[in-house]
Amino acid sequence: MAYLEKINSPADLKKLSISELKSYAEELRQYIITVVGKNGGHLASNLGAVDFTVALHYVFDCPRDKFIFDVGHQSYAHKIITGRMAEFARLRQDGGITGFENMRESEYDAFSTGHSSTSLSVGLGLARARDLAGDRYNVVSVIGDGALTGGMAYEALNDIGASGTKMIIVLNDNAMSISKNVGAISSYLGKLRLSKKYKKLKRVTKQGIDGLPIIGPYVLRATERIKMWLKKQLVSNKMFEQLGIKYYGVFDGHNIGEMINLLEQIKNSKGPVIIHITTHKGSGLYEAEMNPEKYHGVDASTEQIHKFSDVVGEKLTELAARDDKIVGVSAAMMSGTGLNAFRQAYPDRCFDVGIAEQHAVAMCAGLAAAGYKPYFAVYSSFLQRGFDQILHDVCINNLPVRFLIDRAGAIGADGVTHQGLFDLGYLSMLPNMTVLAPRNGEELRKMLDWSSEFNSPLAIRYPKGYKDDIVLPSSEIVYGKWETVARSAEKVYVIAVGNRMLSVAKEVDCNLISARFVKPLDGEMLNEINAEGNIVITMEENALRGGFGESVRTYLCEHGIRCDLKCLGFDDRFCESLSVNTSFEQQGLTAENLRKIIFEHKLLNKNS
Amino acid sequence: MAYLEKINSPADLKKLSISELKSYAEELRQYIITVVGKNGGHLASNLGAVDFTVALHYVFDCPRDKFIFDVGHQSYAHKIITGRMAEFARLRQDGGITGFENMRESEYDAFSTGHSSTSLSVGLGLARARDLAGDRYNVVSVIGDGALTGGMAYEALNDIGASGTKMIIVLNDNAMSISKNVGAISSYLGKLRLSKKYKKLKRVTKQGIDGLPIIGPYVLRATERIKMWLKKQLVSNKMFEQLGIKYYGVFDGHNIGEMINLLEQIKNSKGPVIIHITTHKGSGLYEAEMNPEKYHGVDASTEQIHKFSDVVGEKLTELAARDDKIVGVSAAMMSGTGLNAFRQAYPDRCFDVGIAEQHAVAMCAGLAAAGYKPYFAVYSSFLQRGFDQILHDVCINNLPVRFLIDRAGAIGADGVTHQGLFDLGYLSMLPNMTVLAPRNGEELRKMLDWSSEFNSPLAIRYPKGYKDDIVLPSSEIVYGKWETVARSAEKVYVIAVGNRMLSVAKEVDCNLISARFVKPLDGEMLNEINAEGNIVITMEENALRGGFGESVRTYLCEHGIRCDLKCLGFDDRFCESLSVNTSFEQQGLTAENLRKIIFEHKLLNKNS
Repeated sequence: MAYLEKINSPADLKKLSISELKSYAEELRQYIITVVGKNGGHLASNLGAVDFTVALHYVFDCPRDKFIFDVGHQSYAHKIITGRMAEFARLRQDGGITGFENMRESEYDAFSTGHSSTSLSVGLGLARARDLAGDRYNVVSVIGDGALTGGMAYEALNDIGASGTKMIIVLNDNAMSISKNVGAISSYLGKLRLSKKYKKLKRVTKQGIDGLPIIGPYVLRATERIKMWLKKQLVSNKMFEQLGIKYYGVFDGHNIGEMINLLEQIKNSKGPVIIHITTHKGSGLYEAEMNPEKYHGVDASTEQIHKFSDVVGEKLTELAARDDKIVGVSAAMMSGTGLNAFRQAYPDRCFDVGIAEQHAVAMCAGLAAAGYKPYFAVYSSFLQRGFDQILHDVCINNLPVRFLIDRAGAIGADGVTHQGLFDLGYLSMLPNMTVLAPRNGEELRKMLDWSSEFNSPLAIRYPKGYKDDIVLPSSEIVYGKWETVARSAEKVYVIAVGNRMLSVAKEVDCNLISARFVKPLDGEMLNEINAEGNIVITMEENALRGGFGESVRTYLCEHGIRCDLKCLGFDDRFCESLSVNTSFEQQGLTAENLRKIIFEHKLLNKNS
Repeated sequence: MAYLEKINSPADLKKLSISELKSYAEELRQYIITVVGKNGGHLASNLGAVDFTVALHYVFDCPRDKFIFDVGHQSYAHKIITGRMAEFARLRQDGGITGFENMRESEYDAFSTGHSSTSLSVGLGLARARDLAGDRYNVVSVIGDGALTGGMAYEALNDIGASGTKMIIVLNDNAMSISKNVGAISSYLGKLRLSKKYKKLKRVTKQGIDGLPIIGPYVLRATERIKMWLKKQLVSNKMFEQLGIKYYGVFDGHNIGEMINLLEQIKNSKGPVIIHITTHKGSGLYEAEMNPEKYHGVDASTEQIHKFSDVVGEKLTELAARDDKIVGVSAAMMSGTGLNAFRQAYPDRCFDVGIAEQHAVAMCAGLAAAGYKPYFAVYSSFLQRGFDQILHDVCINNLPVRFLIDRAGAIGADGVTHQGLFDLGYLSMLPNMTVLAPRNGEELRKMLDWSSEFNSPLAIRYPKGYKDDIVLPSSEIVYGKWETVARSAEKVYVIAVGNRMLSVAKEVDCNLISARFVKPLDGEMLNEINAEGNIVITMEENALRGGFGESVRTYLCEHGIRCDLKCLGFDDRFCESLSVNTSFEQQGLTAENLRKIIFEHKLLNKNS
């Protein structure tokens, strides 16, 4: 590693020659492969971004010039270049650096990214501010072709083109997804694929991949056909030119010299420009896509556990065999949510709509209005994009759309933007909505069975993994009924939402209740707790504000139920922790804290 | 009226000749003008839709064939044709029919609309369900050019084109907004404008408008340039063809005979098709746009009151004069939110981004990250579209974006889809967010003053109008501090959110507190209430679940404050009422109910 430790800022990098930059880029790639191999993360997308990121830093003057990396999982090279080489070894670990661009982490990160398709809107905001201030710095938004399928990106393009504001958009186009029949780009890429550079890159990343135990969990897979359309638009129709955005393309995003020349030329042009580059994510992504089971994302910080998504894929396929009304819908998350298995069995009844949660939800509403039983499998934090459609199109019409909400609760290494800590709140506030949380895979199976005949909006939320450490078999699902999974002589009632909270509470001597229904509450069971000296402790992986505990409190107060209540969950701060366990500890979602609360309660009751 | 009362279903309509259909359409137009003149509503958009709606019903077989009218404010003719002629006289009145397409109102309404840009997603859902069922009915989505600026529509177009599913999209293009330089459509429309039919239509609607006291409040005004781009795409680039959607255009949407011929031809074509028609909304819209003050929307059911939007326009302009960091942002709601006045004074610092709430929020985040002070003025129910961006781009980064949330609380005649009954919940659950509610225009001015120096995300929410019936001048705004606006010897504390709740509560003998800050709560004031026999009553125009009252309850419980608590607000059902006052009565948000609660509380305390 001749350069890696010597480059601690863009200024250092600017001193290198083109051939030295190439060597440095190779070192960056190797370093990323090594760290991701240990810590997990997004490998393929970051490897593809190394070369053009080096070129960007060579030509522009960051942090004066602003770089916004859409989604953020192409920002590793940028992080290392901008003085975070050493910290990068602790990527995605608590106290280490985050996996996405993060303005709270470094002045070099112009904004914080995480969710898809935000970089153009944010970039335009920065550019407009610059113009108003009479400043002259550059704003560079780097966006992948997948992220361009999100409606938000179109909203921004509309506005950017109309504004005429100076802004540089780098469209990082993944060569892997280009089909044969898309004209100019295809033949260009065909040549590129045969070149030596391409082959070399492929070999290097292939080697890297084979040695890796884990692959980043967040691989965006928009449908091929949507991407094809995008490319058609780019080439045949100069969509961007029509929008008022100057278009330069197609260039090899791995040719550092060519990229530098290009960027130097457009750097001082007026108005918005788009540079269309192709990069190769490395065969790693391809292998991961071919073998999703093998290369599935694993949170490096937690032990190997069962996955709820496996249950979804398997059980939905089973249900679909006997009920031809069942359909599956995904917003570019087929593998992560488990729908891949369903699609293999029922390709005609499975729809991947791209990174388009708004459309996904309303499309499901249409399916349900026509008598079908749509299951939209989606990550908790991404479903936030469909909030209005859940309310407006699904709930007002009381349509039986089923939301299978994965990655709910604390998320660990993907960090604050991906925390699933708000869904209990934003779903429970909606009339007509029913919200469930399974305690393990067996119960999720029963809930899925039960859900297929339920005729109103319904959400089942769960984290990625679960432990099978409560052996009691799950009883039948009855609407609005909770389940007692452990009994105790103590006057202590712990009402826990979902597998991981139950798993914590089972270490404590208490009457342990699984709140299978977060909404509606089990009023009958709450009424039975009514007695002086009783304590109820609610536990949820959700923000306390608007969450499960608050609704329990309302019920207890309104029904005059005598008992103490303590609500455990996430306080009114964003959870920046990169480890699930640490975030539980920070919020007192531990057996130790439960014991402490119970001890203090008893002491108080003895004294009073 | 030779036909109006005779046509009670599409079957009746099918018996008419083309010339009779024309006469019928004229009657429909007159009837709509008469009813809207009395009841309020969306005039211009509905007048423009009459002729092609007649043609649609002539050619297709509704309700077997499904019509989805985007936004729904072009559905009046459809409602009258489908057996709701008599009920239409009670349009937008409680117990009468709603102003948008509503599947709970009639089997002829294939779905419920209200918010923009949903019709394509919903239509695709219906079409996919039809294909899976092996059925053969038609799905027709009618969408305006304004609604196509919403990202959700693009997400749907992507999916529709890729799917190849049979579906008919009628793009209802408003001729009024077409500029001179957009090529083919422009010259086509130029000819159209000179034709007799056009002139006749213009005259009729002009007459109607002049006699009208009120105009519908919900007039979509996407930026002209965005619309221009759309038209460029349509004409020069055949955007839809590239997407895999067959394109037919441009046709005169007022020529019933031509429309019938066209629809008969494409009715049996395969795959998705788009029919691009131009219609004329009538000079009414033009006049309304030129004189927004005069033609501004009024809720016919309530008395004339002051408008918060006037305060916004005036005060923001004043602030901007002394602070060059202040900018205004609108999502196609410049007039309704009061930003028009600001734009007149500071055109360079005001951005109308089109119907694009997601982009608007993230763009504001970019502006704030660069040190600017963006004010996004938006309706409560439309801001639901930006929920993820508020969380992900604004709040996580703790950026000082100011949300000026109009039409918050009960909305009246626009009905269930437009109710602003969830913002207190979905905003209060977000860390770093501060939420305020002014008690009148004077206080909103003070809040705006105060907000300009506040350095975190902030929302000020208010209904359309307010009464100045509490004469006490508003005290200075202090972070997290409430204000007592009436004192009483009674042990009764009413904590009310916003003007209309205060206005109800002031009729009752109580200590009346204005909860100027919904988040954070005024803990100090709540601590002072601590005494046996006290009763606290919270009042809010918001869903109780997740709302203000719940957070007060949490505070009282966690701080062991002795008092009874009663939370008044909207229960866990969607509010379908078309009158603000009726919805208050339904929810017990009345002085009478307050007195009853206080009486019962005293009785209970006397007995105990």
